Amino acid sequence: MSELYKAVSFTDVNLEDTFWMPRMETNRLRTIPIEYIQCKDTGRLDAFKLKWKPEMPNEPHIFWDSDVTKWIEAAAYTLATTPDTELEKLLDEVIEDIASAQQKDGYLNTHFTAVEPDKRWTNLRDLHELYCAGHMMEAATAYYQASGKRLLLDVMERYTDHIISVFGIEDGKKRGYCGHEEIELALVKMYHTTGDKKYLKQAQYFVDERGNSPLYFDIEAIARGEKPEDYWAKKYDYCQADKPVREHDKIAGHAVRAMYLYSAMADLARETNDIGLRKACDRIWDDMTNGKIYITGGIGPSAANEGFTTPYDLPNETAYAETCAAIGLVFWAHRMLQLECDGKYADEMECALYNGALSGVSLDGEKFFYANPLAAHPGINPNSNSWAGSSDYTYQRSEWFGCACCPPNIARLIASIGNYIYSVSDNTLAIHLYSAGTAKMQVKNTGVTVRQLTNYPWDGQIAMMLEVAHPTEFAIKMRIPGWCGGAVASINGQEINVAEHTERGYLTITREWQTGDHITLVLPMPVERVYSHPDVRQNNGCVALQRGPIVYCIEQEDHEVPIHRIILPTQAELQPEYNSELLGGVVVIKGEAITPEMSAWKDVLYRTNRLNAENKVKLTAIPYYAWCNRTPGAMRVWIPETGG
Amino acid sequence: MSELYKAVSFTDVNLEDTFWMPRMETNRLRTIPIEYIQCKDTGRLDAFKLKWKPEMPNEPHIFWDSDVTKWIEAAAYTLATTPDTELEKLLDEVIEDIASAQQKDGYLNTHFTAVEPDKRWTNLRDLHELYCAGHMMEAATAYYQASGKRLLLDVMERYTDHIISVFGIEDGKKRGYCGHEEIELALVKMYHTTGDKKYLKQAQYFVDERGNSPLYFDIEAIARGEKPEDYWAKKYDYCQADKPVREHDKIAGHAVRAMYLYSAMADLARETNDIGLRKACDRIWDDMTNGKIYITGGIGPSAANEGFTTPYDLPNETAYAETCAAIGLVFWAHRMLQLECDGKYADEMECALYNGALSGVSLDGEKFFYANPLAAHPGINPNSNSWAGSSDYTYQRSEWFGCACCPPNIARLIASIGNYIYSVSDNTLAIHLYSAGTAKMQVKNTGVTVRQLTNYPWDGQIAMMLEVAHPTEFAIKMRIPGWCGGAVASINGQEINVAEHTERGYLTITREWQTGDHITLVLPMPVERVYSHPDVRQNNGCVALQRGPIVYCIEQEDHEVPIHRIILPTQAELQPEYNSELLGGVVVIKGEAITPEMSAWKDVLYRTNRLNAENKVKLTAIPYYAWCNRTPGAMRVWIPETGG
Repeated sequence: MSELYKAVSFTDVNLEDTFWMPRMETNRLRTIPIEYIQCKDTGRLDAFKLKWKPEMPNEPHIFWDSDVTKWIEAAAYTLATTPDTELEKLLDEVIEDIASAQQKDGYLNTHFTAVEPDKRWTNLRDLHELYCAGHMMEAATAYYQASGKRLLLDVMERYTDHIISVFGIEDGKKRGYCGHEEIELALVKMYHTTGDKKYLKQAQYFVDERGNSPLYFDIEAIARGEKPEDYWAKKYDYCQADKPVREHDKIAGHAVRAMYLYSAMADLARETNDIGLRKACDRIWDDMTNGKIYITGGIGPSAANEGFTTPYDLPNETAYAETCAAIGLVFWAHRMLQLECDGKYADEMECALYNGALSGVSLDGEKFFYANPLAAHPGINPNSNSWAGSSDYTYQRSEWFGCACCPPNIARLIASIGNYIYSVSDNTLAIHLYSAGTAKMQVKNTGVTVRQLTNYPWDGQIAMMLEVAHPTEFAIKMRIPGWCGGAVASINGQEINVAEHTERGYLTITREWQTGDHITLVLPMPVERVYSHPDVRQNNGCVALQRGPIVYCIEQEDHEVPIHRIILPTQAELQPEYNSELLGGVVVIKGEAITPEMSAWKDVLYRTNRLNAENKVKLTAIPYYAWCNRTPGAMRVWIPETGG
Repeated sequence: MSELYKAVSFTDVNLEDTFWMPRMETNRLRTIPIEYIQCKDTGRLDAFKLKWKPEMPNEPHIFWDSDVTKWIEAAAYTLATTPDTELEKLLDEVIEDIASAQQKDGYLNTHFTAVEPDKRWTNLRDLHELYCAGHMMEAATAYYQASGKRLLLDVMERYTDHIISVFGIEDGKKRGYCGHEEIELALVKMYHTTGDKKYLKQAQYFVDERGNSPLYFDIEAIARGEKPEDYWAKKYDYCQADKPVREHDKIAGHAVRAMYLYSAMADLARETNDIGLRKACDRIWDDMTNGKIYITGGIGPSAANEGFTTPYDLPNETAYAETCAAIGLVFWAHRMLQLECDGKYADEMECALYNGALSGVSLDGEKFFYANPLAAHPGINPNSNSWAGSSDYTYQRSEWFGCACCPPNIARLIASIGNYIYSVSDNTLAIHLYSAGTAKMQVKNTGVTVRQLTNYPWDGQIAMMLEVAHPTEFAIKMRIPGWCGGAVASINGQEINVAEHTERGYLTITREWQTGDHITLVLPMPVERVYSHPDVRQNNGCVALQRGPIVYCIEQEDHEVPIHRIILPTQAELQPEYNSELLGGVVVIKGEAITPEMSAWKDVLYRTNRLNAENKVKLTAIPYYAWCNRTPGAMRVWIPETGG
């Protein structure tokens, strides 16, 4: 097994850039307060008071707890970088309510305490009970790390002890695991925070038991008096339980569930050097990236199963591509990257971060996408997988959702974005992402500070300055993105041969580093035309535009004709242009496209004459993540191309 | 108002062609017997014995009666042209059972007699009660005309008297009408059969009352203790009741319902010279044909409402395009054609007959499509509007459906196909369709026999011979199809100027006709490349192939590469080729297309290099109606086109 890495915590990474830092501020000042109010107004917070009685409004839903605790996690991350006594007070109040809801035996779940106490642990397959526990653990570890306060962590230690007493292979325990994975990766966090191996062991149990015969979900269904074959999702690959996880070789089922499971498997592979888990992750990763991922890093095209379908089936207008799934992909890719510093993981991580995950929140931080389609057209709702009923309907972000997993998920991601930039191993400092700012880390027990000066992602020029406590030999790995050709690098002004020193997407320089050393990296960012595999039938004859890590789209607002009529000639020149006034400051892509002359199509739906008459039309492409921040309307990533 | 026409009955049209006649035989010998067995086995026939009790299997469903009576109608039509004592005996038995189910007050409906007697006439909006009555009336008139036997007609006269006593504007009556139109056109048939104007009047009532304020469906919902706004379909345009029918200007809602309503409106416009109804029909017709109809004559793209969506929204893989809707379009177009002999109606009628309706039944007459997509891909089910869950899934015809409206509907259409060929008015004989055979009719009280010799639709050469009881001056109108350019015609060997004598799609020759006159018509049938309006975004960059009235598709079975990889160059020559061995004898279209070289795409999903390397691939297109009669697999009508 190759060298293992550990991510440099976001608390040691001080971002000073114009891309992520403003988003972190918006997240802290707008998104997180709004999410608190939503949790309050919808009854999610009060649910912990356990005062709900039948016939009252706001019946605690089975996964409400997770919405609150994901919000706590997000808020805790912001506290860790930006102290805020008022927010801390609010968190303490919420956490006291949570603590008060804990039962004598350690159990803690509002729905199964207040609404259906007789159903506790009777339907792990469908009811998210352990999933909620997992999110509570993540919140507990985050808040403990941010504040040093133990209350929620203590509560969760007791709850986890209870869970360990109920689930396991030992006699008298249930051999269960959750239909929606999450607790597995959360238990690893409990282990990292407490150092207690029992958590790691329980995570291993949940992962190892999954999909074994006889299937626990069947046993449990029979115990409920149901027929296992009546399972609503029909097949157990929906929840990755169709076979033992070490035998998995295709990505399938519910996309968020898959990402959380494989994140945990990557964690366990790292912690326990488990080759079987690692190999399964590799097979699944390849299956996903070879045919089941959008150019935006979105995954899971179908609303029907909130998940994966068949290879190369990547519809655009009905792309579900849930925000949480792209976030889950970031989690998994990041963990794979700690197992092996391979650019293929960092490429997808970066892609999802800058595109398919980030699109999940509006620029003002106040509205959210659940589904992230790659084309929008009046009347089409990717959430419902069916006609919305009216051409008046236009898909747009929402203030909240009945199933509100995405808003706090994007909040916790943005609040901890610094996590994804650096890793260290015994002898190596790896730089995965580029973003202006300063980070501190230990390499070979030596304090190292890296300062990046760059306007990435709008510009590929990066200067890096080092401070090293004392001159030390180690390797610096700098990612050369998969989208980049012709990277140029120099150390202390001396150019180095990038191709020669680059392997698996990382330029690696081993030398004695000392304070004052500086590296410059130039990652050329021409506007690229991207094509998809011919079996992605939805994109036949179409092109997408990308520049650096940013995937572009065209939006109705910027165009004179309905955008589905726009055709991009292969010869058309495309120019990047920074516009500080637009969408918070973005590089747009400008060019001239063509559009059919419509006069001959009046009252004609089909004709045998192709009518090559066409007009010129100005094309303006904006970053995909920034779509739907003006007048909601049509959008598309894939544009018909002609002439080549 | 222009000259009114009356269709020449299929009983006077003797088809001797190789296209429809074999289908009529298959319909008579395979489809109709199979449908009887299905009705028997599923309990639909026994339902009329009224012996069902709670907890028994085969609970009579709300619209089972209509499946049986549509089957009776189909069987009656076959009897009318091909006597069959065994079938007639079977029909008499079934009809006796139906008669025995009639209640003392004339009411006749198995569900609302055996299952929910307390719910009679309480939910016209959703429960198809008058719809079932309508299909029973159609069966009654068909069987009376075929056999001269009055039993079912008498039963239905009594039932209709009951319905008239319940529904109307008079004091004490309910001002109701059916959520699923059908009874309106059926009442016109009752009027035609009995001559009693009360039926026409009741049809007028149902049509005129529809959509008036206050809305009956709301009143009725409140009476049931429901909130009108909880209507599951949300908007009343689903059942064309959002406003009075004379104000309709857009085609909307459930496609079959719309077709049946507008068929009745065309009937009433004809019978009562009702300009308001006629104008509404015209507006809706134009709205439909200008942007809401597939090239196959399929209508209603969405499974969600089994109906219409927004202009130019014509998805291919998920096209619902219900078989019944295309059949309904034939009904409506045919009725419009009797109001005005305009080729625009005949063009759509012919298109639906040869393509989107006919595709609804397999060549062996034993399997049926409910949805008729214009592209099929593994995993996609147009019936469910969602991912079918597995790439193993392939859409194909079924032996029967829980909701079995389509199989008997296509059976009654094919059994009476002769109806659609000729019409007569006071001074005119109109020929709408071409098909080898002999038809007898009266024009100006003179017996006229027309004999067509042709191999249409595979060949556009048509010879017509006339027999006229005595030399008589009248006009003959011969349709020059909208798909046809350069038609040539001659009378008794003398060429006539087609363009000069053609108006609104009909070549019109007025003269004294006599026995021995012969007309030849040559309708050139080159392979045509058809393009759709640029706002049909699903077809951007694509071409469809058509020859004569036949729309073509490519099917996986005939191709070496997955068909979504096939690209048709604009310059590629396309040749028609008759193949007597294939699919019952069809003209296929052959040509050479291109397909991307795949070697560079191994394990690559996106790339910035377009890779123009391509291979040649033979293309074979088959008639759309004949798809899915071999190995079920991928199919597409719209093919990407390149180079022009």
